[in-house]
Amino acid sequence: MASPSRQAVNFAAPRGFATAFKADCKETFFPDDPFHEMKHEKPLNKLKKTIQYFIPLFEWLPNYNLRLFRYDLLAGITITSLAIPQGISYAKLANIPPIYGLYSSFIPPFVYSIFGSSKHLAVGTVAACSLLLSETVGAKASPQDDPTLYLHLIFTATFFTGIFQTALGFLRLGILVDFLSHSTITGFMGGTAIIICLQQLKGMLGLIHFTTHTDVVSVLGAVFRHRNEWRWESAVVGIIFLAFLQFTRYLRQKRPKLFWVSAIAPMVVVVVGCLFAFFAHADKHGIQIVGELKKGLNPPSIQYLNFDPQYLPVTVRAGLITGLIAMAEGIAIGRSFAIMKSEQTDGNKEMIAFGFMNIIGSFTSCYLTTGPFSKTAVNFNAGCRTAMSNVVMGFCMMLTLLFLAPLFRYTPLVALSAIIMSAMLGLINYDEMIHLFKVDKFDFVICMAAFLGVSFISMDVGLILSVGLALLRALLYVARPAACKLGKIPNSSLYRDIEQYPGSTPTQGVLVLQLGSPIYFANSTYIRERVLRYIKEEQGVSDSKTDIIEHLLLDLSGVSSIDMTGIETFLELRRILDSKGIKLSIVNPRIEVLEKLTLAKFTDAIGKESFYLSIEDAVQNCRFSLQYSSKTTMEES
Amino acid sequence: MASPSRQAVNFAAPRGFATAFKADCKETFFPDDPFHEMKHEKPLNKLKKTIQYFIPLFEWLPNYNLRLFRYDLLAGITITSLAIPQGISYAKLANIPPIYGLYSSFIPPFVYSIFGSSKHLAVGTVAACSLLLSETVGAKASPQDDPTLYLHLIFTATFFTGIFQTALGFLRLGILVDFLSHSTITGFMGGTAIIICLQQLKGMLGLIHFTTHTDVVSVLGAVFRHRNEWRWESAVVGIIFLAFLQFTRYLRQKRPKLFWVSAIAPMVVVVVGCLFAFFAHADKHGIQIVGELKKGLNPPSIQYLNFDPQYLPVTVRAGLITGLIAMAEGIAIGRSFAIMKSEQTDGNKEMIAFGFMNIIGSFTSCYLTTGPFSKTAVNFNAGCRTAMSNVVMGFCMMLTLLFLAPLFRYTPLVALSAIIMSAMLGLINYDEMIHLFKVDKFDFVICMAAFLGVSFISMDVGLILSVGLALLRALLYVARPAACKLGKIPNSSLYRDIEQYPGSTPTQGVLVLQLGSPIYFANSTYIRERVLRYIKEEQGVSDSKTDIIEHLLLDLSGVSSIDMTGIETFLELRRILDSKGIKLSIVNPRIEVLEKLTLAKFTDAIGKESFYLSIEDAVQNCRFSLQYSSKTTMEES
Repeated sequence: MASPSRQAVNFAAPRGFATAFKADCKETFFPDDPFHEMKHEKPLNKLKKTIQYFIPLFEWLPNYNLRLFRYDLLAGITITSLAIPQGISYAKLANIPPIYGLYSSFIPPFVYSIFGSSKHLAVGTVAACSLLLSETVGAKASPQDDPTLYLHLIFTATFFTGIFQTALGFLRLGILVDFLSHSTITGFMGGTAIIICLQQLKGMLGLIHFTTHTDVVSVLGAVFRHRNEWRWESAVVGIIFLAFLQFTRYLRQKRPKLFWVSAIAPMVVVVVGCLFAFFAHADKHGIQIVGELKKGLNPPSIQYLNFDPQYLPVTVRAGLITGLIAMAEGIAIGRSFAIMKSEQTDGNKEMIAFGFMNIIGSFTSCYLTTGPFSKTAVNFNAGCRTAMSNVVMGFCMMLTLLFLAPLFRYTPLVALSAIIMSAMLGLINYDEMIHLFKVDKFDFVICMAAFLGVSFISMDVGLILSVGLALLRALLYVARPAACKLGKIPNSSLYRDIEQYPGSTPTQGVLVLQLGSPIYFANSTYIRERVLRYIKEEQGVSDSKTDIIEHLLLDLSGVSSIDMTGIETFLELRRILDSKGIKLSIVNPRIEVLEKLTLAKFTDAIGKESFYLSIEDAVQNCRFSLQYSSKTTMEES
Repeated sequence: MASPSRQAVNFAAPRGFATAFKADCKETFFPDDPFHEMKHEKPLNKLKKTIQYFIPLFEWLPNYNLRLFRYDLLAGITITSLAIPQGISYAKLANIPPIYGLYSSFIPPFVYSIFGSSKHLAVGTVAACSLLLSETVGAKASPQDDPTLYLHLIFTATFFTGIFQTALGFLRLGILVDFLSHSTITGFMGGTAIIICLQQLKGMLGLIHFTTHTDVVSVLGAVFRHRNEWRWESAVVGIIFLAFLQFTRYLRQKRPKLFWVSAIAPMVVVVVGCLFAFFAHADKHGIQIVGELKKGLNPPSIQYLNFDPQYLPVTVRAGLITGLIAMAEGIAIGRSFAIMKSEQTDGNKEMIAFGFMNIIGSFTSCYLTTGPFSKTAVNFNAGCRTAMSNVVMGFCMMLTLLFLAPLFRYTPLVALSAIIMSAMLGLINYDEMIHLFKVDKFDFVICMAAFLGVSFISMDVGLILSVGLALLRALLYVARPAACKLGKIPNSSLYRDIEQYPGSTPTQGVLVLQLGSPIYFANSTYIRERVLRYIKEEQGVSDSKTDIIEHLLLDLSGVSSIDMTGIETFLELRRILDSKGIKLSIVNPRIEVLEKLTLAKFTDAIGKESFYLSIEDAVQNCRFSLQYSSKTTMEES
């Protein structure tokens, strides 16, 4: 039964450090291998492709034609009708004058259309980041007492966001966004939607005094403390608007073709609200209006960037956190729409585009912009083909700013509140939370940490809590890797987990264990104890000579890497096993692991003949050398 | 070629949440399964075994006899001769009166002998923690200006260390110690040894003024700034002592049987130093001496514990950091000696023993104790059999405190400096660092971060830096898991990494990929991109119809778990593949993964027939349904 066809393990010389390091860096920072296609091109073509890679505009513009433009024109006009009310609303949320919301939909779309790689993404401000900015910056400078300083700090935070995003993009650290898990984002979005909705009670009820805190308790407290300020007129108008908006959303769900109804609904609300306020002199009946909106394009704001060391910590912090969230939202959304069309977006390139957008935005009176979900969905549904739809939106916004802006001064605040509430209600993803609860309890906890943390403490604490839990889980995965005992599945040469396949049988005298995940400092002690426990359990069943384990086979197929502590553990393990008279063999080590084992002389220590390519091979060899077990009782393969 | 012997994947109903949760908790917190042996005992025996488990004294004392005591007596006396000079020296390092070093070797050994599970560990103070305590606490209270407050804060920090260690032990968080990797400890020890050695220049050169900083630059600066205070008498005596100590260490390395020479050498140095100082009136010739040492046992110090909120942050912080380091050293050392004798120690139990030792110590004028390496090694070599050697040491220390303490007042400081320096020089593990550099560059960086961080910044910064890097690496392992393309090894049914085994051949039209490690939020995007890149590379080679991939097989043997984001990724991946006309199949999912895939309805989405138990099975089935590839060109298995 000596196995003549025994396949040898490949003991090729370990790769040099430079080779291995280069390969690791490539996998870490360039997993998408962006220059793959350029490898075999001529120098001139290479230059052209490189420029096209960095400035995607040059990739699609040469092939652009009138037919495509027809689609983009329609999509651009549709998203403009969404951009105006959202711009005004979210600027209110960020506690800055509404006109800056309109400014923010003018310059950034042009920048994105040059550098952005997504075809469907529509640029605009987002509710969560607007609120987060006002929460963070508002803690240092009051938007009521010193609105100019506050506004300048918002620009500065936007500038830092841009710098941060650009830097991450160039450093190819898109990997950071990967650490915001699906569950964290679901919880964060839900929690943010809740607190933003509650904040809208201010506008809905026509309150004058309110709180600067964002948590549920403070906000509800403020709402009920100021019961005397409640205005029923405002509430009635608000509820009517909200009901209308929700109806159009419902309509879109039922008949996806009518998506444009819900897309222009906010604009309808604003226009109707304006007309109503103008003719009914609503501001005299307790319904507050937006107030003056200046005509004219974005004034430069580069001279207002405030690098005073006193405010630097808060602006940098606001910039980093909002930058990360905005990026996560923008990239995730860009990706999900690209997937629908089987296209790919490059996260790192997107980051650079967002970064440029925000840097240039902060110079031209815009605040933080990204690719918001609602607008992008509308853009996609309206049939946009390229980033040209953003250019169209930019032009429309320009016309609005030049000619129409003053018309919106009569917009009732309650209309804006209704628009925000309606948008936010769609972001609470109950189904997903229930799904998480059913499939993965720990993911549900991560989601709830973000949801409850955001609702009851503050946005950044909720986010950090959730990410922290997710990282803890990642580390636990790593600290307690799965290990299992394998048995042979009858009538095959397959060895599988005995718990999972109760039909599989262990070989007498040979213990086969499968280790998963990398072996290193965080789990090496555990792995040693776990292996020893398997041996103890095995020998504990009975004390008869036939149950003595003489061979331990470790299947390392699933072990993708090992560090020094891991190797030390193997050496220790071998010493312990030696003293128990058990022989250790290794099955199918991967290339990275084998390299290190060879360098650390472990291979020489246990001998190359103790390395096998398959479990079957190893078991056959071990059975040959068994002393106590009666060989005849074993089934033949 | 339909495979009649095809082995089915086991689609048993997923385990309930409670079962899975219990199993996970058990693996996380009780990996050593401490109550395993008690399962089948009678209630009374169970109680007995439980008590024995928690108080190991009851386990070994009943079987204790005079023969064993002979060994322990010898070992106990040997370690006492080390405990006296080390106690005095390290107390000087902690900036507290030397007598407290002797106190710390009296009570804690008794406590450890009751609760400790290691047979070889010898209790005592350690240099690194002594220095760390003085560095941390000294930042808040000066040992020169207010020595009483400083001393009380040291007791308080020791108390917190004890509480922290006990709590971790009861919560079974021994897992925390696992995060201090071998490389971190090597670097930290080396760096600490360097700065402690340099600090001894104060004693060696007889300096009076010095710095409170510990980093290399400050210390060397202080040494050279006070050139005028250098005393050649002191330096000569110091160098003679150091040479003698180093010679005995060298002797031990050459002839391990003469270990006792190096064990009593420090005592010899102290005695010779005392005699020399007494007869030569050394203190009048610029050689400083220890000064008064009171006769008598430890006074109680429980009333001195200082919980003033002003000092709480610093004492708690000092307690936590020194507690973690002391624990790591104690547990690691206990373990390594246990391994030599093929015994096992329980990290969590050891933590509780250390915790009790420090709590009771802080009540009785002791400061932080653990199981130092040097003393434990001497204890082991002196032939100790049980924790009784600690009891013997305790009694010897009692006698010393009652009768001999005043004799040590003449000990020259330079002798203590020589003892510390000699001990520290042995802790710089050059060989290990070179080994790390050769085998694993990243481990070397982690080690150097601790080494240089401790040497040039401060001890806690160095430690945190190194642990941070190690965690970052763990997260990178997790974020960029290894994936490889498999090919069939000729004349076998084995599929192995094509890069590792260049002889293996891919099957036309079928792409087999092996994924490693858990699939979840931190790496799911990467995995999707990586898989798509493999497909692109595959199809990019040539555009001929025969190279079209029709089947993608994902071998999940190495995937130990998956989370919601990972499942979403699989669903996305399937959608993309569908649009490319590629069929996705899964090979050998583990039980945890299969459970989640089933719960998330992924199993239903791709159909149970797309799950295979082995790659061979899957490939056979796929070949059957290939459209373009010419079936005849493929080799038969």
